[in-house]
Amino acid sequence: MTSPESIALIRSLSAVRQFADRPIPRQARDDIFEVVRWSGNASNRQQFEVLWVEDRDLLQRLAGTEGYAKHLAGAAAGAVIATWMERDELNAFDEGRIAERIMLAAHAHGISSCIGWLRGRGGEEAKQLLGLPADRTVRTTISLGFAAEGARRGRRRRPTGEVIRIAGRS
Amino acid sequence: MTSPESIALIRSLSAVRQFADRPIPRQARDDIFEVVRWSGNASNRQQFEVLWVEDRDLLQRLAGTEGYAKHLAGAAAGAVIATWMERDELNAFDEGRIAERIMLAAHAHGISSCIGWLRGRGGEEAKQLLGLPADRTVRTTISLGFAAEGARRGRRRRPTGEVIRIAGRS
Repeated sequence: MTSPESIALIRSLSAVRQFADRPIPRQARDDIFEVVRWSGNASNRQQFEVLWVEDRDLLQRLAGTEGYAKHLAGAAAGAVIATWMERDELNAFDEGRIAERIMLAAHAHGISSCIGWLRGRGGEEAKQLLGLPADRTVRTTISLGFAAEGARRGRRRRPTGEVIRIAGRS
Repeated sequence: MTSPESIALIRSLSAVRQFADRPIPRQARDDIFEVVRWSGNASNRQQFEVLWVEDRDLLQRLAGTEGYAKHLAGAAAGAVIATWMERDELNAFDEGRIAERIMLAAHAHGISSCIGWLRGRGGEEAKQLLGLPADRTVRTTISLGFAAEGARRGRRRRPTGEVIRIAGRS
């Protein structure tokens, strides 16, 4: 079982911040939900919840919170990750895993995405907008949608040898 | 462009801790390296490095550090992620993203994996073993290899409705 198609998919994921006015197809949404459900996480406790937002008004309010998630305003859908583990490094790590899965599942449907971060009061504001309890950490958002025509993609990277290095005898 | 194959791949990723005595094929390693290189991260700064270990002696020493990475001892390869951003939440988030990509790229080649965490003195011990500078954060490891016969896979999950919820009008 080798899948060059999947490697190409993972390799080609890139951030897009401008989206076309076109909804997320039902099948894509279902697949994203499935992939979130089967996300691995610390000790399999699954102390996270993903809030899925297609409501335009709510997307714009979330885009207006403090931080770097303005691109939610033009997204077809937004995913907001809430976590509640005892150590924040565990939360942040799981948020990274879940975000990557959501973006890859969307990408498999030709849907683009971009991570957003809430800073300062942004997390608390988002919790209020989403009706989430006080003990939740809300920090990571994902803006999703089909890329607008001419949308820029960030694809600059360091060469492989600077990013990965073989240690010990090989 | 819709890829049911890739969705199935992402969905079916599961943790495996027992590995067969069989090396990682060259093509799989090359693909994992490529996917690490193209990993998106905070502000595109790529303040991370992945140490790739196939040296059996070094794998066993790493497995002996404090924390939860004992399964490195039996792995065909280990990936150790080093990060150096100014805020630890950024490091942990990127570690999650990179770990997920490495595991998915391996999975596309039929290779199993498991995340390990270094705790207490484990990070410092690993840095010494790998000759990494003091300013690096080392916490996340990934054990990789073909699954041993009869290896257990953790696949229990909460139902979709408990993990993902639609907020606002849909």
